[in-house]
Amino acid sequence: MENVDTLILGGTILCLDDSMTTIEDGALAISGDSIAAIGTERDFRQRFSSSDIIDGNNFLIMPGLINSHTHAAMTCFRGIADDMHLMDWLTNYIFPAEARNVDPELAYWGSLLACAEMIKSGTTTFCDMYIFEEEAAQAARKAGMRCLLGEVLFDFPSPNVKTPEEGLAYTRNLLKRWSGDPLIRIAVEPHALYTCSRPLLSEAAKLAEEYNAPLALHLLENMSEREQLKEKLGQEAIPYLKGLGCLNERLIAFHCVTMNDEEIRIFSNHGCKAVYNPESNMKLASGFAPAARMLAEGICVGLGTDGCASNNSLDMFQEMDTAAKLEKVRHLDPTLMPAETVVKMATCMGAQVLGMDGYTGCLKAGMKADIIMIDLNRPHLTPMYNPYSHLAYAVSGSDVHTVFIHGKMVMKDRKLLTLDEEEVMQHVRRIAEKVKESLKESV
Amino acid sequence: MENVDTLILGGTILCLDDSMTTIEDGALAISGDSIAAIGTERDFRQRFSSSDIIDGNNFLIMPGLINSHTHAAMTCFRGIADDMHLMDWLTNYIFPAEARNVDPELAYWGSLLACAEMIKSGTTTFCDMYIFEEEAAQAARKAGMRCLLGEVLFDFPSPNVKTPEEGLAYTRNLLKRWSGDPLIRIAVEPHALYTCSRPLLSEAAKLAEEYNAPLALHLLENMSEREQLKEKLGQEAIPYLKGLGCLNERLIAFHCVTMNDEEIRIFSNHGCKAVYNPESNMKLASGFAPAARMLAEGICVGLGTDGCASNNSLDMFQEMDTAAKLEKVRHLDPTLMPAETVVKMATCMGAQVLGMDGYTGCLKAGMKADIIMIDLNRPHLTPMYNPYSHLAYAVSGSDVHTVFIHGKMVMKDRKLLTLDEEEVMQHVRRIAEKVKESLKESV
Repeated sequence: MENVDTLILGGTILCLDDSMTTIEDGALAISGDSIAAIGTERDFRQRFSSSDIIDGNNFLIMPGLINSHTHAAMTCFRGIADDMHLMDWLTNYIFPAEARNVDPELAYWGSLLACAEMIKSGTTTFCDMYIFEEEAAQAARKAGMRCLLGEVLFDFPSPNVKTPEEGLAYTRNLLKRWSGDPLIRIAVEPHALYTCSRPLLSEAAKLAEEYNAPLALHLLENMSEREQLKEKLGQEAIPYLKGLGCLNERLIAFHCVTMNDEEIRIFSNHGCKAVYNPESNMKLASGFAPAARMLAEGICVGLGTDGCASNNSLDMFQEMDTAAKLEKVRHLDPTLMPAETVVKMATCMGAQVLGMDGYTGCLKAGMKADIIMIDLNRPHLTPMYNPYSHLAYAVSGSDVHTVFIHGKMVMKDRKLLTLDEEEVMQHVRRIAEKVKESLKESV
Repeated sequence: MENVDTLILGGTILCLDDSMTTIEDGALAISGDSIAAIGTERDFRQRFSSSDIIDGNNFLIMPGLINSHTHAAMTCFRGIADDMHLMDWLTNYIFPAEARNVDPELAYWGSLLACAEMIKSGTTTFCDMYIFEEEAAQAARKAGMRCLLGEVLFDFPSPNVKTPEEGLAYTRNLLKRWSGDPLIRIAVEPHALYTCSRPLLSEAAKLAEEYNAPLALHLLENMSEREQLKEKLGQEAIPYLKGLGCLNERLIAFHCVTMNDEEIRIFSNHGCKAVYNPESNMKLASGFAPAARMLAEGICVGLGTDGCASNNSLDMFQEMDTAAKLEKVRHLDPTLMPAETVVKMATCMGAQVLGMDGYTGCLKAGMKADIIMIDLNRPHLTPMYNPYSHLAYAVSGSDVHTVFIHGKMVMKDRKLLTLDEEEVMQHVRRIAEKVKESLKESV
């Protein structure tokens, strides 16, 4: 008998590996930070011993979810303003709220609250873009979450950096400081083409190349951005990015709502990655991203919630549900975006998008143990004919019972083990009081 | 001091009354089946006493939700088949599964499971259409839920009735038997114009008139139905219904996806009611129902989940979220369907649709005590700037903590008090095994 740190015995295991293996009466062994073996309960009872045995019966066991686009600290602005035109929303609420309130404290506690919410809804890895990302990294480390993050870069000052040069220097520091960290990786993250000059984008691309880091940005989120870009750049966004040497396998583009067929082909040919954010695209009335077409053209597409000001939830199960349904109704074709596809986007494909497919996003021996267990013993999950259908259309974040990240149990029976949930909520409530006060000034 | 049966002290109360009253540090008194009074904690501590005092602090207290269109017993078919063309789905899965399996046992336990799921996600009233509705009524009575239900009427035989005449007779029996019931009301429910002949519809309309009961049916769910109807009837659906004398305040039409502007005006002029089912419309790729336009034209529009084979969840919070977002992206207008509107559709307006606005759908003295308490002390509900934003965009069914229906507590701290949840799930799992076997025969 081989001794392992943790042994899960029983349950339905969805591996999300290349052959989409499903194991009924499954078993999974964890040693250190990794999956030691996956097999059947019957077999593992004879092969492995452990002082930590978890009963997996009545659970769905799968890779932790990957939220490929969010702004974690924006939990502090959840529901601050909704149902209004983008410019009204940005100019009168989001920008003043940010300018007056975002500081290292807000960034840290807001990110920590996001980590609490994400773990509690089954997300084990997230890709973040915001201000004071050192604080986001500290929050992710505290929570025990895996992430790819980068300081947002603009032409104009942010509460953290006064100039684009400072932003690039801050990013370089992040790249150095977090190099080799087991959980935290750094990306270079210019905000978007309409907020970053050619020199800033060019320098950002060079920095990403130097560190072999992902280059992540918002791209073609709505039609007015597209038109604005064409006027500003004198050309379309995709050839512009190509000219800057940004179209390669390290590029991660968030949204891509107005990308046309030809641009999708170019994107695909260059191995660029995309992230689909259907809930945010709906709420902000950005439009319908061509997610099904991108997948059909071979682009690797992840799924993201976007930030809490434009969703207003970080629940990836709801995002999967909407991702599965929105393309169906848009194209009046119920066969688009089947359940299995959206589950892949939230797991193995998300890992590819973030460049983490070597160690997370699926369950197999040797991968890091990023695992969630979903409690099936619930009225709304009864009966079960097909686990993928359940994940896309019936499971909600609150059905996640137990979460492992990097071999460590971070939630058990819905109790967070790395964070004091009450303390985090108290901090953010206090911050929100200040945010409310600060907005009174402007109106 | 006046003694009352139950006293809720503290919390934010959303009344959903005509003036959309919000009370911070609220209080609510329940006597018998009704709301005795609503006010402030400070005041009520001096006016009322009770042996049953509930702490409302950190809760959002509001009317129970109204699911205005579902097929409750179809929980037994949750996820049986997804992501396929409508005719494939109906012909190869839903119809054979129903023909071979629907009996009083499935109808009863499937409905009871739906009641469990609905109460646990904050729904206190539902409108049902299915086969063996006497069993659905028994299930609702057992669960303590309020409902409007009717046996589905077709030209062809159902597992319950062999002829349209039998269906009408069965409905008449329901109308007689449940007359005066405090929780259960009966509607006359022809399935749709494409499945019911002119004589059946005409008789159904007469029966509804005789008992002053709602007449509820599926209407214009997708474009192919519309085209089929025009060919079959030689005229459009709305004038056809008008000719049959069906266009009046008792008509409840589910879906109305392909209804055009002129038809919406006619519908509005006649006081007809509509039910919006955005999740189902998306999943089945039916199309975009003109919900915002209907509301603008003064039609009373409720919100429904549809059945569990086409959603696959009965969570009205997710339905509100999608209802708020789908019209925004369709019309590229983020001001459409604001949070308050979708909350009204799921409460006070839903009550109007079902003809129950005299006694449920809002909180005020004298109304039946149909009340839910939502636990705000959760990471994903922190912070709170606006309660309506939270209800539409952040709350999920599992945040509902306590539920009262007709003055009776039916859920406390997420434990159902009227049902044995485990027993219900066991029964439905056994039924699902038979359903699986039955489908093997056809393939």
